[in-house]
Amino acid sequence: MSKHVEKSRIAVLGASGYTGAELLRILARHPQATIAALTADRRAGEGVETVFPHLGSLGLPGLVRIEEVDFSNIDTVFCCLPHGETQATVASLPAHLKVIDLSADFRLTDPALYAEWYGKPHQAEALQKEAVYGLTELARDAIAKARLVACPGCYPTSALLPLVPLLEAGLIDAENIVIDSKSGVTGAGRAPREEGLYGEVAEGIHAYGVGRHRHAPEIEQALGLAAGGRVMVSFTPHLVPMNRGILSTIYVRLGKNADAGDLRGALQKRYGKETFVQVVADGVLPSTRHVRGSNQCRIGVFPDRQPDRAILVSALDNLVKGASGQAVQNFNLVSGIAESTGLEQAPLFP
Amino acid sequence: MSKHVEKSRIAVLGASGYTGAELLRILARHPQATIAALTADRRAGEGVETVFPHLGSLGLPGLVRIEEVDFSNIDTVFCCLPHGETQATVASLPAHLKVIDLSADFRLTDPALYAEWYGKPHQAEALQKEAVYGLTELARDAIAKARLVACPGCYPTSALLPLVPLLEAGLIDAENIVIDSKSGVTGAGRAPREEGLYGEVAEGIHAYGVGRHRHAPEIEQALGLAAGGRVMVSFTPHLVPMNRGILSTIYVRLGKNADAGDLRGALQKRYGKETFVQVVADGVLPSTRHVRGSNQCRIGVFPDRQPDRAILVSALDNLVKGASGQAVQNFNLVSGIAESTGLEQAPLFP
Amino acid sequence: MSKHVEKSRIAVLGASGYTGAELLRILARHPQATIAALTADRRAGEGVETVFPHLGSLGLPGLVRIEEVDFSNIDTVFCCLPHGETQATVASLPAHLKVIDLSADFRLTDPALYAEWYGKPHQAEALQKEAVYGLTELARDAIAKARLVACPGCYPTSALLPLVPLLEAGLIDAENIVIDSKSGVTGAGRAPREEGLYGEVAEGIHAYGVGRHRHAPEIEQALGLAAGGRVMVSFTPHLVPMNRGILSTIYVRLGKNADAGDLRGALQKRYGKETFVQVVADGVLPSTRHVRGSNQCRIGVFPDRQPDRAILVSALDNLVKGASGQAVQNFNLVSGIAESTGLEQAPLFP
Amino acid sequence: MSKHVEKSRIAVLGASGYTGAELLRILARHPQATIAALTADRRAGEGVETVFPHLGSLGLPGLVRIEEVDFSNIDTVFCCLPHGETQATVASLPAHLKVIDLSADFRLTDPALYAEWYGKPHQAEALQKEAVYGLTELARDAIAKARLVACPGCYPTSALLPLVPLLEAGLIDAENIVIDSKSGVTGAGRAPREEGLYGEVAEGIHAYGVGRHRHAPEIEQALGLAAGGRVMVSFTPHLVPMNRGILSTIYVRLGKNADAGDLRGALQKRYGKETFVQVVADGVLPSTRHVRGSNQCRIGVFPDRQPDRAILVSALDNLVKGASGQAVQNFNLVSGIAESTGLEQAPLFP
Repeated sequence: MSKHVEKSRIAVLGASGYTGAELLRILARHPQATIAALTADRRAGEGVETVFPHLGSLGLPGLVRIEEVDFSNIDTVFCCLPHGETQATVASLPAHLKVIDLSADFRLTDPALYAEWYGKPHQAEALQKEAVYGLTELARDAIAKARLVACPGCYPTSALLPLVPLLEAGLIDAENIVIDSKSGVTGAGRAPREEGLYGEVAEGIHAYGVGRHRHAPEIEQALGLAAGGRVMVSFTPHLVPMNRGILSTIYVRLGKNADAGDLRGALQKRYGKETFVQVVADGVLPSTRHVRGSNQCRIGVFPDRQPDRAILVSALDNLVKGASGQAVQNFNLVSGIAESTGLEQAPLFP
Repeated sequence: MSKHVEKSRIAVLGASGYTGAELLRILARHPQATIAALTADRRAGEGVETVFPHLGSLGLPGLVRIEEVDFSNIDTVFCCLPHGETQATVASLPAHLKVIDLSADFRLTDPALYAEWYGKPHQAEALQKEAVYGLTELARDAIAKARLVACPGCYPTSALLPLVPLLEAGLIDAENIVIDSKSGVTGAGRAPREEGLYGEVAEGIHAYGVGRHRHAPEIEQALGLAAGGRVMVSFTPHLVPMNRGILSTIYVRLGKNADAGDLRGALQKRYGKETFVQVVADGVLPSTRHVRGSNQCRIGVFPDRQPDRAILVSALDNLVKGASGQAVQNFNLVSGIAESTGLEQAPLFP
Repeated sequence: MSKHVEKSRIAVLGASGYTGAELLRILARHPQATIAALTADRRAGEGVETVFPHLGSLGLPGLVRIEEVDFSNIDTVFCCLPHGETQATVASLPAHLKVIDLSADFRLTDPALYAEWYGKPHQAEALQKEAVYGLTELARDAIAKARLVACPGCYPTSALLPLVPLLEAGLIDAENIVIDSKSGVTGAGRAPREEGLYGEVAEGIHAYGVGRHRHAPEIEQALGLAAGGRVMVSFTPHLVPMNRGILSTIYVRLGKNADAGDLRGALQKRYGKETFVQVVADGVLPSTRHVRGSNQCRIGVFPDRQPDRAILVSALDNLVKGASGQAVQNFNLVSGIAESTGLEQAPLFP
Repeated sequence: MSKHVEKSRIAVLGASGYTGAELLRILARHPQATIAALTADRRAGEGVETVFPHLGSLGLPGLVRIEEVDFSNIDTVFCCLPHGETQATVASLPAHLKVIDLSADFRLTDPALYAEWYGKPHQAEALQKEAVYGLTELARDAIAKARLVACPGCYPTSALLPLVPLLEAGLIDAENIVIDSKSGVTGAGRAPREEGLYGEVAEGIHAYGVGRHRHAPEIEQALGLAAGGRVMVSFTPHLVPMNRGILSTIYVRLGKNADAGDLRGALQKRYGKETFVQVVADGVLPSTRHVRGSNQCRIGVFPDRQPDRAILVSALDNLVKGASGQAVQNFNLVSGIAESTGLEQAPLFP
């Protein structure tokens, strides 16, 4: 690595949650990034060793309030703030900063759609327009030129990676798409609440947000672009007793004359040279266990018993490819660094 | 309870697996059953206290080989033998016995369909014809008169309880049914195998048997009867890191002029007086946690975002309503005992 | 059961936590109890079906504030209120009520010791003096005559059942007792807090309260009575990723001429006829799995490699024998009902 | 890193188990190692992608039988073979190879002690004499010169790191040591067996090998060297429902005039500059969650309530610092590579 490349100086806003911790885990070992500031309003004044004991020996800066950060000294900001709060904060940041945002605030491009799903008008419509939707493998060029990247949600990443190439190729019907997703608990964040307690989660499974989860319009927005028209999907998320992982089982109707082999072929063609997306061999079952802690997404294609249908299965780690890993991937692109830098770690199994 | 009622004398064949243990747990406290014989070929000669320490203080008989049982002394046999083995065993039993079978051997009524899915002809076609499919709430009268009851599979029970009444009422389309099921690990039995180890199951989820699970024809057989014609479904089972429970998320297209409220109404009408099937209130999310250890099945009905579609969610304990509990329910019917006897236990949560 | 026996009318105070739910599960099926009132200040006005969906079909009364209860109509109160709050509430209850208290408020008999560990003087010293420590198998006669029973903590129950008979018999040294306990998460209650989230508990283990847990003086109080002098133990609790269960591994030095067989013999003699305490056979390993959901306590005795030492292992369900089950056992005694009534349920495994 | 340093060529014998997988995960990213050969007798002929799908994209060689390996091309062998099998295999390897052994075969130095605990004479006594016990932080110089390193067991590593410096300093009594250890399931390996199934492990805890686990003599051997005389400990391992991690809670009697602060000071002095061993701050509770996937060992020191006693708690990942990570640490030493190379990865939490 050339010594002439200066390390990018990073601030992580909202560093006390799970996506924040995951960013720190990755960035602390990233050869071209320096973690220069961490913020967490509720825990300002604490050291990383009390908020995340497992990261305590990495020599990271202490947590401060966002007002205390000297941004003149920062190149890139990772935003892990709550949905709704992020837009005003990003709008207030100095213009020289590149922003990798992990919230939902800049994912929907249509102000009306945003208002419909979030119950109030967007507070930074110019930024909303400027933001690039950061599904890395499918938007590399735009991301590389972006100043503000809206990283996709974890569920949308797991649905869009398999579906977008197939819709673009006309291999599947844009109607009749059913996305049944199963997520680990870290997707719900670290804020204390009864329904997140071990006793309420372990040894059981349930669906939530049935018919009305906010990731549905995000998925449909990207599918609509791929299909060249409005797409509406059935999408149901489920909570599974595991820390990490999303498995999406996707039921599609085949396009004319297409079969499951064609779908597999199209995905292999699209992702064959990718580092982080793998179309698994025929008959192999993608499992979230096999991507844990890594930036991988594994995709399987299966014929359904109904001859005109097929089933897609995708597996990723919601905190990595579904959040902080993809964010670092985008940071690398934005910063002109090799895309996989800092993300080479193999999955941790068991 | 009148003392004139004699207790039914029970033999459990294949008592060393999880469904066997669950039968013992229930029957040991059943006021009108006496456990008179237990068999388990591989563990013959052992006491229950070594095979299932948690049942060791119930005073149960020791495990013997099936040849050692004096069936003249038995009224009813519960069969928990492996698929394929059961048919010959049942065929060899004395004719006075009532048989509650938990295997798949007598679930498919069409010999050709059986041969197609199990790879060899059925060995007891007369019994196959005689057997009554024991989905209790939907076949009470036939079960009460049966000598041989084929208890439904765990996945089929979770799919059929919500779907059959809706198909019968013409409220949903018989095509376009997607059943995405998630099961705990005990459904896979107690035989040692690498993929069942804690390290291979905990903290992850995966699909299996995608497009070709043997419960699909069983589901379709019952749905076909309800719809009055051939039905083919998309069905995908998943393995979830939990001991017990099945959650099925079912995506349907509505019949003409029907909406989700109509579906809810039809199910409430059908199950409103049932002890073990509950249509949960609007907005309540069925969870497997809330049925653990009980014979309950909880069903929720949700409008989909797509106006012509709805989503059904059912939750049950695969070892109870999905196996041994429903078996006892059927035993009660067959024996003229009040149907809920021995099954009143409330769920264990957390 | 004679129909002349009237059912006892029960109020459960603090019914929205885990011990409350467990009481409801047991009492709803108890043939000689009627649940007449439930209180839960924060959730007053809600029905049981929203607080505990798994109990929603049992026909239980709704939750009210404690002020709304007409105690003239109640025979026995189960108190599941927080430590510190209970003493004033119990002092304010009408005198005709029998009280089964599950808090720590009346466990320590010495006011000075209470003040030392809880940081303030006891507010109801007369009741503190009156209360009977309800370790059922070791205090039956006193409990049967009591008006106020202080049910033991979950850790103390697991430690005292094996230790008290051995100290009384002089078979072990009153010094050199090390109690290493491992508990499931429900012992920490249902209040939302970061450290109770699934993500903070699953897939890990840690000790807590090392050298200073409040159950230590409770254990020592009972051991002191058994040994006839002051006893001080080393006691460390640990949090294990499981919902239910306590396993205590207890390291003792043998008394003169005693060996592990003598310990086993003494425990067998003491507990041989007990319904809920079992000394397991030589070589059998007590496991919390084998008592889940039941009122059982299983105790094993093992020789240590050091010839003058032995190791005791006890397993129980912290919500049943460690809390609500033992409370019902005590209720039965206090009410003149057969002691095991309502508690016959076999363990749920897996 | 100078390009003149040639990479070490590695063979992993017994690569299809969990410690094998963990070695591959670490070594595949190790900048100075090349994985040249993998053996696994039962799975010879398979590719890594079928045995360990999560490692399938790392470009590793396929699995072969040990006879098929050309060792002339190998510099270092990692041995992950079963206990008892290893000694003959190592004895048969060409003399130019350095051997990092993860089995128990070369840990005990006394042939009589080995025969006593393993039931037969050692088959390679010369090697047994030559082997260096590889507890890295406490035997660096000897390891660096060794040809055959016997990596410590997971339990011994967790017990010896805190205890050895304290015994050497005379700060604790060599008698009266109680080691209560709790381990995740991967320590039991990947071979299929009923007691390892998810249903037999999840949601419960039990002790095993009480009073007679083979790691006891290994612990005592090292403690004896530290104390300068024979040491005998009470040691009980437990199985916890988690994939990875060992927590050891160690009860000690203080030496004359010593207190817990002295113990903490001695450990801080010994480990203050170590990369992989951390004495956590006063009051911090070591947790296995905070070392998952890393080579860290965290040690806490606590005063006991009994004034003459203290409690030590250590936490490590049994597959990393307790096995494959420490093995790589030793490989680095043996190979003259910086000791932490390949082991810098931060823990994965949650």
